[in-house]
Amino acid sequence: MSTTDHAWMALALQLARKGLYSTHPNPRVGCVIVKDGELVGEGWHARTGEPHAEVHALRQAGERARGATAYVTLEPCSHHGRTPPCAEALVNAGVARVVAAMQDPNPQVAGRGLERLRSAGIEVSSGVLETDARALNVGFIKRMESGLPYLRAKLAMSLDGRTAMASGESQWITGAAARSEVQRLRAQSSLVLTGADTVLMDNARLTVRAAELGLDEEMTALAMQRPPLRVLVDGQLRVPLDTPFFQAGPALVASTRSDQAETYRAAGHELLTLVGDAGHVDLLALLRELGVRGANEVLLEAGPRLAGAFAALGLIDEYQLFVAANFLGSAARPLLDLPLERMSEARELQIKDIRAVGDDWKVIAVPAS
Amino acid sequence: MSTTDHAWMALALQLARKGLYSTHPNPRVGCVIVKDGELVGEGWHARTGEPHAEVHALRQAGERARGATAYVTLEPCSHHGRTPPCAEALVNAGVARVVAAMQDPNPQVAGRGLERLRSAGIEVSSGVLETDARALNVGFIKRMESGLPYLRAKLAMSLDGRTAMASGESQWITGAAARSEVQRLRAQSSLVLTGADTVLMDNARLTVRAAELGLDEEMTALAMQRPPLRVLVDGQLRVPLDTPFFQAGPALVASTRSDQAETYRAAGHELLTLVGDAGHVDLLALLRELGVRGANEVLLEAGPRLAGAFAALGLIDEYQLFVAANFLGSAARPLLDLPLERMSEARELQIKDIRAVGDDWKVIAVPAS
Repeated sequence: MSTTDHAWMALALQLARKGLYSTHPNPRVGCVIVKDGELVGEGWHARTGEPHAEVHALRQAGERARGATAYVTLEPCSHHGRTPPCAEALVNAGVARVVAAMQDPNPQVAGRGLERLRSAGIEVSSGVLETDARALNVGFIKRMESGLPYLRAKLAMSLDGRTAMASGESQWITGAAARSEVQRLRAQSSLVLTGADTVLMDNARLTVRAAELGLDEEMTALAMQRPPLRVLVDGQLRVPLDTPFFQAGPALVASTRSDQAETYRAAGHELLTLVGDAGHVDLLALLRELGVRGANEVLLEAGPRLAGAFAALGLIDEYQLFVAANFLGSAARPLLDLPLERMSEARELQIKDIRAVGDDWKVIAVPAS
Repeated sequence: MSTTDHAWMALALQLARKGLYSTHPNPRVGCVIVKDGELVGEGWHARTGEPHAEVHALRQAGERARGATAYVTLEPCSHHGRTPPCAEALVNAGVARVVAAMQDPNPQVAGRGLERLRSAGIEVSSGVLETDARALNVGFIKRMESGLPYLRAKLAMSLDGRTAMASGESQWITGAAARSEVQRLRAQSSLVLTGADTVLMDNARLTVRAAELGLDEEMTALAMQRPPLRVLVDGQLRVPLDTPFFQAGPALVASTRSDQAETYRAAGHELLTLVGDAGHVDLLALLRELGVRGANEVLLEAGPRLAGAFAALGLIDEYQLFVAANFLGSAARPLLDLPLERMSEARELQIKDIRAVGDDWKVIAVPAS
């Protein structure tokens, strides 16, 4: 691969990122078409049902696509979905070379798009800036490979690892910059997952609010057109339907009870019954169901009990810890209800990033493999 | 001040830092002498009873000191201590100009050294790189200004703010690089302060070990010649005299009991009786006593109870938090035994630094003023 290939792929990735808040359940994809060292077409996928990145780029390139090189951040599709296959479009346009950042993560179709291009005499290569391309679609890739969404847990804590006072008092642990970043995390997620404790205690609505996103007009509009579904784990149906959470829009409720399905439906919500061990909601079954429904990235915003339950099951893929510069003391609530007895049971993590967010700090950590 | 002045003062500060591990109870001081833009003498204070930085630098400069500029990181002394006053030495050597980074922090003598120089016709200025100079002697300055040492609390915790399992199991939360950094923190401190819990539970000796310092030969030798005094808070005299802590060398013990003074003395240790409220050791009185004895920087290495007690009293000047990339869970011990009820009681901090130390992270935080 040449430095030039890297540069054009970096541009394609930058275009793909414009779809961060809107492509769900599709992946974010970008494409640039280059002829004789000049950019002749660029495109990115904006939302489901609309043209793929390659189609936008080919349209812009027109006749100049003939003999050109197409850089795509994901292997072009070879199947007829809501739109015609992009591999065909590239062949028909007469491009001479296609460079992909990564293959299709769906094991059932991986390589078929590239194969279709090769069989038409197009020079094909894959793997340019693959790490960046995979990071951009971490949820889509996990769902394609395992059926499960990528579960990101957002937690706000003090420097001594506490999330609220024993009384439940917890508002505004972190500042405005951190809250804005949480808004963007919500907006990029297929759905936001929370628990009855959080909704009851904090009167949380878990919505995306345009004014707090801190994005430009175009990106804000894209984000607001596709708000994440809000999913509530409420085993005993403790959250009344007249709370701000339910008033803010349709929600999906996971419960161990099924007797209220009609009531929830009538109020515009959906009740899902998933009975697990000890009378709790079956959390793994819930994630599987969310995967079936196309959830790529799930943002878990829950209290220590629910977040601790997901952690205990090893279901959390990434922690986004917003850390305030204070001590809440030893009587305050823990980060996670996760009782461990021995050091050997400690959950080992890998810290991917630590950086300042306003007056707070954000730590991104993933379970050590 | 000119850029040149800053550069020479930076060199003087670099020299002063060579005394980081050895000048106790004196401050770390460096001096350079510059004649016609050329360095003609440099010196730094190594240990108490030995010549001050200015004397070393003047000796090296010899006759070239006449008409030269002397850069000193602390106002030259004007009083006869264990060594003759440096202000006199500078006058006698015929220097034309003296630039100090800061005045003497002792309010009783501040400015007298500079005054002596001025009265001899020397051009004098102060305040060049003062922030750096103050940081280097934060403990000496605090003791001169308030009588109390600078109390630095070192704590090792998991990312969820826990220091040990409920059983007390806690060894090796952090890795080798963090332990080496703790060794250097000990070595630069006038004394290391610990509690009976830590000594009993971890079999801690709190000594400085040459091999773990990670310093070059010269600095290691300086550090090992002046090991920090180890001070144990043991209100009820629970720690037996045959533990590794007492076997490792003479220690000072702060207790509420006085009946065993002779036993401790016979074993080579000193028992200090300081009865405070509720039958506990009076921690403020202890710090005052340590200040009287010349302690500049005190490193507190204690468990949640003693560290929490110092924190509750507002006596901790700086937290050095070594953070391991794991979760110890909600049954594990807290960072500090510091029960607070309302968010308004939260201890606000200012984070000064976060950086990687091997596989761990170190957070330096100070109480927000």
